[in-house]
Amino acid sequence: MSKIFRFGVSLPKELIEEFDKLIKNKKYNNRSEALRDMIRQELIKKEWSENKEVVGAITLIYNHHKREVVNKVLDIQHNFQKEIISTQHIHLDHDNCLEIVAVKGLPQLIIKLTDTLKSLKGIKHSTLSMSSTGTNLQ
Amino acid sequence: MSKIFRFGVSLPKELIEEFDKLIKNKKYNNRSEALRDMIRQELIKKEWSENKEVVGAITLIYNHHKREVVNKVLDIQHNFQKEIISTQHIHLDHDNCLEIVAVKGLPQLIIKLTDTLKSLKGIKHSTLSMSSTGTNLQ
Amino acid sequence: MSKIFRFGVSLPKELIEEFDKLIKNKKYNNRSEALRDMIRQELIKKEWSENKEVVGAITLIYNHHKREVVNKVLDIQHNFQKEIISTQHIHLDHDNCLEIVAVKGLPQLIIKLTDTLKSLKGIKHSTLSMSSTGTNLQ
Amino acid sequence: MSKIFRFGVSLPKELIEEFDKLIKNKKYNNRSEALRDMIRQELIKKEWSENKEVVGAITLIYNHHKREVVNKVLDIQHNFQKEIISTQHIHLDHDNCLEIVAVKGLPQLIIKLTDTLKSLKGIKHSTLSMSSTGTNLQ
Repeated sequence: MSKIFRFGVSLPKELIEEFDKLIKNKKYNNRSEALRDMIRQELIKKEWSENKEVVGAITLIYNHHKREVVNKVLDIQHNFQKEIISTQHIHLDHDNCLEIVAVKGLPQLIIKLTDTLKSLKGIKHSTLSMSSTGTNLQ
Repeated sequence: MSKIFRFGVSLPKELIEEFDKLIKNKKYNNRSEALRDMIRQELIKKEWSENKEVVGAITLIYNHHKREVVNKVLDIQHNFQKEIISTQHIHLDHDNCLEIVAVKGLPQLIIKLTDTLKSLKGIKHSTLSMSSTGTNLQ
Repeated sequence: MSKIFRFGVSLPKELIEEFDKLIKNKKYNNRSEALRDMIRQELIKKEWSENKEVVGAITLIYNHHKREVVNKVLDIQHNFQKEIISTQHIHLDHDNCLEIVAVKGLPQLIIKLTDTLKSLKGIKHSTLSMSSTGTNLQ
Repeated sequence: MSKIFRFGVSLPKELIEEFDKLIKNKKYNNRSEALRDMIRQELIKKEWSENKEVVGAITLIYNHHKREVVNKVLDIQHNFQKEIISTQHIHLDHDNCLEIVAVKGLPQLIIKLTDTLKSLKGIKHSTLSMSSTGTNLQ
């Protein structure tokens, strides 16, 4: 469990007032929590650029009636067995599936996996959420 | 099943050459597939700005030893039962969890849910992947 | 001249350490200045989404040998006389020009102007920098 | 002057229809022009990641009554004389200035210059527009 430290921040009065409106709007309880999130966001950007181990989620939207895409998505996932933790599959409607792949590994491999899936004929959309293992985000 | 149509695109020779290098690098089989993805990406941006029904994935990183955050994450998810399709929970290490929430609904509600989760004390990081129901993305 | 206020922020020790590395890297003198910038960035996002008066810079790259584009760029700028403050024109090489248009006005008009310029045949690239009048950013 | 080549693109009928709505909305004359812009945008991303010579615009908002910031902005600009092409200065109101610095050089130097200016006490906001020399964007 990490210790909480306290330090002072000096900001112009008006900026603090605007900030207080913003954090109320974003549902934060207090300034420390809002600032904590902004700092973490910057640290995660750094993790992804420095090729440290990261965590992410790849989303895929595809039509499961196109058999070929279903098989290829499976094949590719097996080639990245080490990076893929688990996969969640959701039937959006009669045709469309949402598949969410939880991943952990080096950024360059995660990005390669995302590009390989994204480029498949039949994948309608894909995104990559860049997150963190949490170990450096106390 | 949607019909495939063909149309001609006129581009400067050098731009086509640079584009061909790019799509090779991104693992696309041909120009049509790369262009299709760029177009879909633009359409999804539009869907999220126009408040049509969308699909997404919220990722959360948190320390499950902080009991309070675990309970609050559950409570909030129950308040957005209509928008949440399913949740995938992964134990990253002794302390850290990755939770991926598959969501479907109006963008403003999805964003409100994300903000509410993100602002919880104990959530180390959260992301929102903006995707699509796929119905308008043939 | 705005008054400087001071408040305390509580953060986990490790997060502060990581933050200190980050701000050293980004050349900030102290934590307050780094936090001030993060807060302002969030406020400017809000200004652009709320349709308050904003400030920006539009960049255009084009080949000035294509006479038609030169004339159209001028015509369009005259139609947005109220939003355009001034224009800086730079000869990058024998063919290519960089034009930077300083703008001030409502976000939707600034975006419309950018789209209109961007869609011109002959414009190779354009960007829009979203900034602020500075009046709410003490 | 570069030659225009023509090639065929195969896309699902519905996607073409959605695309046509989008490009009408964004004021493009035809599909080729919209696709051309999407392709160039991807190429510029690549230029900035590969550390080729690029072009950009840095915007700064500051209060010119704070003498110290005015002098430091000048000093720093002189240290990056090789990268800075020219500077446009606009008086937004009694207090606030917009300064737009046109730059050309290696991405890492442009980013270092931006970070150095951004971190100055007194700079209220800064942005960096990433554009191109235009030579590889026919």
